[in-house]
Amino acid sequence: MSIIKPTAVIWKTRAKNSIKSMLDKVSNSNIELRPHFKTHQSSILGEWFREEGVNKITVSSVEMAVYFANHNWRDITIAFPINILEIQEINSLAMKLDSLNLLVENTESIECLENKLTKKVKIWIKIDIGYKRTGIYFENFKEILVLVIKMKKTKNLEFIGLLTHAGHTYTQSNQRKREIFFSSLKKMTILKQNLDREGFSNVKLSYGDTPSCSIIENFKGFDEIRPGNFVLYDLTQFTINSCEEKDISIAIACPIVAKHKDRMEIIIYGGGVHFSKDYLKVDDSSESFYGYLVEKNADGTWGEINKTNYLKSINQEHRIFQQIH
Amino acid sequence: MSIIKPTAVIWKTRAKNSIKSMLDKVSNSNIELRPHFKTHQSSILGEWFREEGVNKITVSSVEMAVYFANHNWRDITIAFPINILEIQEINSLAMKLDSLNLLVENTESIECLENKLTKKVKIWIKIDIGYKRTGIYFENFKEILVLVIKMKKTKNLEFIGLLTHAGHTYTQSNQRKREIFFSSLKKMTILKQNLDREGFSNVKLSYGDTPSCSIIENFKGFDEIRPGNFVLYDLTQFTINSCEEKDISIAIACPIVAKHKDRMEIIIYGGGVHFSKDYLKVDDSSESFYGYLVEKNADGTWGEINKTNYLKSINQEHRIFQQIH
Repeated sequence: MSIIKPTAVIWKTRAKNSIKSMLDKVSNSNIELRPHFKTHQSSILGEWFREEGVNKITVSSVEMAVYFANHNWRDITIAFPINILEIQEINSLAMKLDSLNLLVENTESIECLENKLTKKVKIWIKIDIGYKRTGIYFENFKEILVLVIKMKKTKNLEFIGLLTHAGHTYTQSNQRKREIFFSSLKKMTILKQNLDREGFSNVKLSYGDTPSCSIIENFKGFDEIRPGNFVLYDLTQFTINSCEEKDISIAIACPIVAKHKDRMEIIIYGGGVHFSKDYLKVDDSSESFYGYLVEKNADGTWGEINKTNYLKSINQEHRIFQQIH
Repeated sequence: MSIIKPTAVIWKTRAKNSIKSMLDKVSNSNIELRPHFKTHQSSILGEWFREEGVNKITVSSVEMAVYFANHNWRDITIAFPINILEIQEINSLAMKLDSLNLLVENTESIECLENKLTKKVKIWIKIDIGYKRTGIYFENFKEILVLVIKMKKTKNLEFIGLLTHAGHTYTQSNQRKREIFFSSLKKMTILKQNLDREGFSNVKLSYGDTPSCSIIENFKGFDEIRPGNFVLYDLTQFTINSCEEKDISIAIACPIVAKHKDRMEIIIYGGGVHFSKDYLKVDDSSESFYGYLVEKNADGTWGEINKTNYLKSINQEHRIFQQIH
């Protein structure tokens, strides 16, 4: 197929290898993989997971859950604090799925859900393990217990476990990622033991994030992991050593629309609306850049990264590649 | 209408006022307004311009041109270097429109277009007035002349003028914006006079960018201006004094999904996929932020900016508002 506009190209063999390799580790650890689909949001990539036996997924919005429900996924966790304004869509999802799993982190959400749900759903309590975005801070066991007790008395909320996302691994070395993983495991395990002591047994533990799941071999202690980015990887993950260059399975093919030999620059059709505005730092400097150039092979794959050619700047529709002299 | 998901809200009275005020200046200057529609990409906002008598527009991709052609716009400039791979769509656009206007900046594009166009189109030569993104650098008059002479010999390319975009006004003070505008006008006028001397008369001059068009009162010397952002404005334009707070006509309404009183933070549903990752700097510091909080009025408009509440961080679906203590 010839490419005429900025187009995401996926290297299927690499993506499937990443799926298989994560599944191997997960099955050796005797736990489950519930991959986060917000990275790709594609029913096609979804099928690559299904072919390997995955049947549980994570998404980050009700809209995404509806999309994948329409593509025959029947066990979906929406890993985002409940937006109660979407209750109508949540109820129709609950009817459609075998298992709809939601997150709560306060009593208001539990009350709202209990009042407005028309079918039983499963509930994870979101734990903040140190990332400080959402969730109950892991030291507030009392607050967690209040929610668990409250859910026990509801008709439509079935408490199943504690879920955390270690998003702060994104900026860390592999050694530090390992430390974060094991300290998360320890904190979550203590919470589980405390709940057990209060009479709540069989509490499940769910852990997420690509950086640490990529370098940890054994996840024993958790019941499921929810990495997402690992199916494609990218330059950020490569830079923080979560993967090797040969694991990156996405590139954006862009038409060249202008050349400026005097400035050693080419202008491509492909900008902020096709990529993102995420950037990387040039080694040991405050300068940032947006990507590297790779050359397309005849079979649709691509060659090795050439660090002398980098994406210097980005606009709505343009990007500038500059060659280092 | 009740809002259940992150939703862009447009303050129509303000937007229409901005359109009228720009049109007043343009008609006093006896030139034309060809607004850039890449800012809003909405047929509804397009109609607000049409109601005020605008019938010529600018877009930044072939795709956007097709969209607005389907909404009965008949005179469209695609202000982006030609991507010759899209020739098929360009040809069907040319059939559909009264006037399709394209940009070239090298002989290769002219040759390709001449070979592949099936109908006559109008051509602007893109001039780089100092922004150094695309276009022929304004000092290279010889290069410009080569293109004009080459077009003279073609069947399908009608040269109409020189076009520039002063994107470097975005980071400047109003005094500096004014200087950039008048120096651009001077440079472009000299190029026009030089072409006239070579026998090419009636060359038109087109100028773009919201920051300088917002503060300049008289555009005499140019034939058209192409500001886009001014219909909505935003915090960036407000910060660089292109507009006043009362001119900002867009806000994003977002459900609150979690509160963290201890950190003085609220979490909203609305992230990188709903906003952009553009950021502003906190006065005199290296800290950045992504927006301010305003309160919704009952009629759908909003109150004044409260600078003690700002958007602290952004993720794919989340944003964090932090209140300054």
